[in-house]
Amino acid sequence: MTQSAFDLDGYLKERRSLVELALKAAVPKLPNARLKKAMEYSLLAGGKRLRPILVMAAAEACGTKGDKVLEAACAFEALHTYSLIHDDLPAMDDDDFRRGRPTCHKAFDEATAILAGDALLTLAFELMAESARVKGISAAAALEASRLLAVAAGGEGMVGGQMADIEAEGRKVGVAALKGIHAGKTGALLTASLEVGAVLAGAPSARRRALVEAGRHLGLAFQVADDILNVEGDPQKLGKSVGSDAEAHKATYPALLGLQKAKKVAHNELDAALKALAPFKTAGEPLRALARYVVDRDC
Amino acid sequence: MTQSAFDLDGYLKERRSLVELALKAAVPKLPNARLKKAMEYSLLAGGKRLRPILVMAAAEACGTKGDKVLEAACAFEALHTYSLIHDDLPAMDDDDFRRGRPTCHKAFDEATAILAGDALLTLAFELMAESARVKGISAAAALEASRLLAVAAGGEGMVGGQMADIEAEGRKVGVAALKGIHAGKTGALLTASLEVGAVLAGAPSARRRALVEAGRHLGLAFQVADDILNVEGDPQKLGKSVGSDAEAHKATYPALLGLQKAKKVAHNELDAALKALAPFKTAGEPLRALARYVVDRDC
Repeated sequence: MTQSAFDLDGYLKERRSLVELALKAAVPKLPNARLKKAMEYSLLAGGKRLRPILVMAAAEACGTKGDKVLEAACAFEALHTYSLIHDDLPAMDDDDFRRGRPTCHKAFDEATAILAGDALLTLAFELMAESARVKGISAAAALEASRLLAVAAGGEGMVGGQMADIEAEGRKVGVAALKGIHAGKTGALLTASLEVGAVLAGAPSARRRALVEAGRHLGLAFQVADDILNVEGDPQKLGKSVGSDAEAHKATYPALLGLQKAKKVAHNELDAALKALAPFKTAGEPLRALARYVVDRDC
Repeated sequence: MTQSAFDLDGYLKERRSLVELALKAAVPKLPNARLKKAMEYSLLAGGKRLRPILVMAAAEACGTKGDKVLEAACAFEALHTYSLIHDDLPAMDDDDFRRGRPTCHKAFDEATAILAGDALLTLAFELMAESARVKGISAAAALEASRLLAVAAGGEGMVGGQMADIEAEGRKVGVAALKGIHAGKTGALLTASLEVGAVLAGAPSARRRALVEAGRHLGLAFQVADDILNVEGDPQKLGKSVGSDAEAHKATYPALLGLQKAKKVAHNELDAALKALAPFKTAGEPLRALARYVVDRDC
C-alpha cells in the first residue's frame, strides 16, 4: 500500500467515533452528579483523540485488532484529559479556554476541576485493569501496561515534565533542557501509548523496542509541531488563542531556534519515527500515516 | 491469645518502621528535584500509617506474611497522602497546617502541591503494579488489587465523597446523607485496604467478603471517631487545630447526634467490625486490635 493510498481521514473518522462511544461508556455511574458532569464536560469535549488512536494503531501494527485494546486506549484519553484540566488551573497555566469553550474550572469551579482531574486520573487505572477482560489479553500484559502508564504519567514522566516546565518559565533554557522538559511533558505519554499497544498485543520484544523508539521521536515531533502551531496556527481551528507562549516568554523550539529550524527538527524527528516503523510493513501503515499527521496537522 | 495479651503498641511500632523504610524507597529517582522534595515532604511526614498497616494485617489474617504485600501497603499510603495534599488546597479545605507543620502548598506553592499530589496518586498505581514481583503473588491478583484501589479512590469512592462533602457545606444534611459522604470519603479506601490484603493473599471469597464487611463498619467507625476528635481531641497530639468542623458548620456525627450518641455509633460499628473479624481466629488478632485502636485512638 503506498502512502497516498491510505485513507487517513476515513481512518481517523472511524477511530474517533469508536473512541467517542467508548469514552461515553467509560465514566461510571457516579453517586455525585456534579463530579460526573465535570468529568464528562472535559472528557467528551472533542479533541483529536490522538493517544487512544495511537494505542489502537500500535496494537494493529503488532497484529491485534484495535478494538481489543479499546479500554486501554480510553485510559490514555482519560489520563490526558486530567492533565489538561489540572494544567489549566489558576495556580498552573491559568487558562480560561480549551477546545473553544471555558476550561473546567471556569465552567464549574476550582475545587470541582481539581476533583474531576483526580477522578479521571484514577479512572485511567480502573480502565487499564479492565483491559484484561478481553479474550487473549493476559493479566500479566494488562498489569505491565498499567505500570507503563503510571511511569509515563507520574513524576518520572508527564508530571515531572510539567513541574520542570513551570520552573523554566522566565528562565533562560537551552535546547537540551527544553528537550528534557518535552520528553517528560508530552513525550512519555505518547511513547507509552505505542508501547502499551505492543504489550497488550503480546508483541515480541524487538517490535516493542521499535515502537518505543518511534514513540520517542514522535513525542518530540508532536511537541515541536505544537509549539509551531502556537506561533502560526489558526485560533479558530485550534480552539484556543495563539501567541500565548511568546507572551509568557516560554521556552519553545521556535523561540530558541527560529521557526524554520524548528520545522526542520519536527521533520527530522518524523523521519526517524518513520524509519523505526518501517519493519511493520503493511500493518504499520496507519501508524506511519498518524506519524505524518502529528507533524502536519493544523490543530 | 486474649485481647490483653496482644501487644498493639509493639506491633504498631514495628509495622510503622517497616512502612517508613519502604516509603522512603518508594519515591523513585526523579529528574525534577523540587517535585521529589514536595512528594517526600508530605509522604514522609509521619502519620499513623493506618492504611498500609491494615493491608498487611489483612494479608496476615489470610495466612500471608505482611511484608509480602508491602508494595501495595505503600500504594495505599501514597494515595492517602495525595488526598490530604489536594484536600488542603486553598480551593478545597484551605488548611495551613497538617501533622503539626505547614501543608504542602504552604511549604512549597499551589502548583507544586497539585503536581506532588498528582504524582503520588500515579505512584500508587506504579506500586500496585510492582506488587506482583513478590513470589506467590500472581499478576491476576495484583491487577484485581489495582482495580479495587482505583474504584475505591475515584469518583465512585473517595473523590466522589470529597465532592459530596464540599457540596454539603452550609447545607442541612441528615444522618443518611452523612453516612453516604463518609462511605465514599474515608470508608471506601479503608475497606479497600482490607480487601486488597485478602486478594493479594489469595484468600477464598468468604474470607474476602468478611474483610469487606469488617472494612465497611471500620470505615464508618473511623470517620465518626475523627469527627469526635475534632470536638474534644488534643490539638498537640493531633498536630492540627480542633473545632474547625463546628466553625465551618460542617455536617458531622457529633453535630447531628450529639457527642454521646456519636460515641455510641462508633462503638456499635466497632462491635460489628469485630464480629465480622471473629472467624479469623488467632491470625485476625492484629486486625481486631487495630479495629479497637481506630475507635479509641487519641490522634
